[in-house]
Amino acid sequence: MQTLAPQPAPSAISTTSIGIYGSAGRMGRAIIEAIEAAGASLAGGVDAREDPNPIARTADVLVDFSTPSAIEAHLAAARAAGTAIVIGTTGLSPQHQSMIDDVAKDIAVLQTGNTSLGVTLLGILVREAAARLGADWDVEIVEMHHKHKVDAPSGTALLLGDAAAKGRGSSLAELRVDSRAGLVGARTEGTIGFASLRGGSVIGDHSVIFAGEGERIELNHRGDDRSIFARGAVRAAIWLAGQPAGRYRMGDVLGL
Amino acid sequence: MQTLAPQPAPSAISTTSIGIYGSAGRMGRAIIEAIEAAGASLAGGVDAREDPNPIARTADVLVDFSTPSAIEAHLAAARAAGTAIVIGTTGLSPQHQSMIDDVAKDIAVLQTGNTSLGVTLLGILVREAAARLGADWDVEIVEMHHKHKVDAPSGTALLLGDAAAKGRGSSLAELRVDSRAGLVGARTEGTIGFASLRGGSVIGDHSVIFAGEGERIELNHRGDDRSIFARGAVRAAIWLAGQPAGRYRMGDVLGL
Amino acid sequence: MQTLAPQPAPSAISTTSIGIYGSAGRMGRAIIEAIEAAGASLAGGVDAREDPNPIARTADVLVDFSTPSAIEAHLAAARAAGTAIVIGTTGLSPQHQSMIDDVAKDIAVLQTGNTSLGVTLLGILVREAAARLGADWDVEIVEMHHKHKVDAPSGTALLLGDAAAKGRGSSLAELRVDSRAGLVGARTEGTIGFASLRGGSVIGDHSVIFAGEGERIELNHRGDDRSIFARGAVRAAIWLAGQPAGRYRMGDVLGL
Amino acid sequence: MQTLAPQPAPSAISTTSIGIYGSAGRMGRAIIEAIEAAGASLAGGVDAREDPNPIARTADVLVDFSTPSAIEAHLAAARAAGTAIVIGTTGLSPQHQSMIDDVAKDIAVLQTGNTSLGVTLLGILVREAAARLGADWDVEIVEMHHKHKVDAPSGTALLLGDAAAKGRGSSLAELRVDSRAGLVGARTEGTIGFASLRGGSVIGDHSVIFAGEGERIELNHRGDDRSIFARGAVRAAIWLAGQPAGRYRMGDVLGL
Repeated sequence: MQTLAPQPAPSAISTTSIGIYGSAGRMGRAIIEAIEAAGASLAGGVDAREDPNPIARTADVLVDFSTPSAIEAHLAAARAAGTAIVIGTTGLSPQHQSMIDDVAKDIAVLQTGNTSLGVTLLGILVREAAARLGADWDVEIVEMHHKHKVDAPSGTALLLGDAAAKGRGSSLAELRVDSRAGLVGARTEGTIGFASLRGGSVIGDHSVIFAGEGERIELNHRGDDRSIFARGAVRAAIWLAGQPAGRYRMGDVLGL
Repeated sequence: MQTLAPQPAPSAISTTSIGIYGSAGRMGRAIIEAIEAAGASLAGGVDAREDPNPIARTADVLVDFSTPSAIEAHLAAARAAGTAIVIGTTGLSPQHQSMIDDVAKDIAVLQTGNTSLGVTLLGILVREAAARLGADWDVEIVEMHHKHKVDAPSGTALLLGDAAAKGRGSSLAELRVDSRAGLVGARTEGTIGFASLRGGSVIGDHSVIFAGEGERIELNHRGDDRSIFARGAVRAAIWLAGQPAGRYRMGDVLGL
Repeated sequence: MQTLAPQPAPSAISTTSIGIYGSAGRMGRAIIEAIEAAGASLAGGVDAREDPNPIARTADVLVDFSTPSAIEAHLAAARAAGTAIVIGTTGLSPQHQSMIDDVAKDIAVLQTGNTSLGVTLLGILVREAAARLGADWDVEIVEMHHKHKVDAPSGTALLLGDAAAKGRGSSLAELRVDSRAGLVGARTEGTIGFASLRGGSVIGDHSVIFAGEGERIELNHRGDDRSIFARGAVRAAIWLAGQPAGRYRMGDVLGL
Repeated sequence: MQTLAPQPAPSAISTTSIGIYGSAGRMGRAIIEAIEAAGASLAGGVDAREDPNPIARTADVLVDFSTPSAIEAHLAAARAAGTAIVIGTTGLSPQHQSMIDDVAKDIAVLQTGNTSLGVTLLGILVREAAARLGADWDVEIVEMHHKHKVDAPSGTALLLGDAAAKGRGSSLAELRVDSRAGLVGARTEGTIGFASLRGGSVIGDHSVIFAGEGERIELNHRGDDRSIFARGAVRAAIWLAGQPAGRYRMGDVLGL
């Protein structure tokens, strides 16, 4: 593991000007607050019904938390203006991913399913731990979310499971065990178990447990406030503004 | 909730003489150690192939960690001698339970699926919390055990779920949700969710989570050492030695 | 422990009319939101500079989150109108406490340092656990709060320590050990240890650990959102509205 | 961070022959069991009163869990025989460290204060997390040990604090805050706080908390069984047997 120099604190003042696609949603409003908190400046925000081109020309970097159907127009505007773009919109199809790959030939694009810096770092640590510990350390992933969440496991739990599987030189599809109930038999070595808890108003807790003989390592993330996603997106945008064309991941923002 | 006077510390010296049914098993040997640690005396131990009657006549109280098939003979010996008996043997049938009810007319019998004092107390606290908090606090139960365990959820998790259901004036059968995977929809109010983790050599961890709006209460038990079951059984035996005929539970030992 | 019938869910609609002393503060505004959420009605709110009497006559019950210097006038207004009052204002002196005792001869008064229902219940469970487990189970209390908090341990940690001490038939002053650093020697049986963590924006986490030989019980509360204090205050007010004169505690609201 | 290939599982059979200095102590006996479990072979064990030279000549690698006063003779024997040595003996002076540096010119020597693989990995993850997250994520370290432990914080907590300080490009001596009690004021950015809990029979739990705005990362290790230290020492010995002269750390065993 290379140890690079510590990163500058994210609270450092930035003069980057940021434009928002999807500014009317809850996430858009949170991003406006995060831009202020980071000392960056707001180039403006547009909705799905508005022309995405003018803001693409005036902003240093764009942040997109809109809808899959609007993504194509936003990418085209960013490319035409030569402006970097962070995409946090979820529910993208493989076609959207190809589109992003293509646009990334001309501009810097960072696309991610989770803009929290903490979750991003946790994924890196999980991959590293899984690679080092050997298959006789059993991996279990537990997540808890509020009572309104309709699917399980969470997308972030799967992202962490994917990191563990990669650390083991395998893929999550091969190793995944989604739940245990009844006479399930002894644990199969090398599998990755998932458990999902639901209740109250929990924003999102994730634990990755590595259980060895006589000892355990637990790597946990607790999201106490939804603002973490907006703050991470703004930090990613400030970082992305200065990058050459290419496709980036959240881990790049942390220098990983 | 009545607040009774604090109980005497379980480490107080006792002169109770304890006989063991199932003394050759791992649990039997652990009980012999726990008897010494408690300062009680060992009246002796017999195996399934030996006559259970002599020891029933010399001991102040008996502890049974044998097998379901031997239970009938042990109960008969205890009854004939008029000696109290703690039964920690698991896997009992409804017929065994009726047998115990019948024998409890003549002698003191304490039967339980978990002799840990910590788990016993946790069950009491869970019932109380469930009764006080109202159905808008969601209950989730998580347990973790070693990789060799073949069934899920654990018997102790179900015991805790039963306590929560009783606190709500309901039964676990009505409220139980065993696992979540896929598009399961929003949580149904009042249900009790279970999740089971398996890995390494974990002896037994249990968490009961009450998730309300904006806050959570977690009641946890962690078993670090198998000796807790033997120690609890010995404490139960010392307590039971002086009791009148009747059927008792572990909670009675704690004065609850 | 008596097991009472489950309490009605706090989400049940109430028609209680609630007046607020200290309505301009952050807590006052949170209480207005909690009144709406509970389906109760807002009788109005007054500031320290306004006359507290009119609202005392129109409201069914009053909630005070003002300042110690305003308490005397608010108590007098409540007494004159014969209206029950919940006092959540902190920093009260022994003189204020005597004042409250005196007013409680004529009206129902509930005064508390923490209006969270979860913390209230946790205190009850801690006292019960401490009473049952005996002095050979070591008690440790850990709390974590945001980086701006200037004192340690938190008032809530001390409240929980007090509950543990009472469960042991002792007082916290006798048992309290505030920190450990250096060559402190082996643990003294019966003491209650405190540890305080500070960091980030944590609203308030508290853990009470009972560590026995080979097993541990942990009773935790996690405050994820400041609204829990307002919500608990409103639930207390709705409950208090129908009570006879006397002095009440948060535990009474939970039927404990 | 370079991602290397996964390590072979430690359960793989090894034919390494291991000699033990300090074989009569509790740790010595645990190492003999761990050698068997790993499928390695025991070259023999000697006590402080016995001649350390014969075993140094027959073993492939030596493991030392003896006493500081015996270290000099053991190092001399290992050097004379050209046999690698793992030193887990604690309480070494700076003179001992110089001696080890000198011997490491001729043979492979691995000296460490904690031979648990889990703790070793945790230290690496903590350094990495501290380097990436920036100084606005507050670091707090909590440890819990059994009631007989006389010093605080634990050596392992300090080792983890040192890793966090290094990740920040600083030293622990500059950043360390050992306890908080009373009116301590707001947290100073960049400091590393320690808290020590004591109770029951806890073998050793460590948590490193990174608390940011609205989110937290917790990296935990739980030692459930003392055998982890023996197992880690044996794995280190098997790895060290094939290495050239030099001084090594536990992290090297994990390829870090």
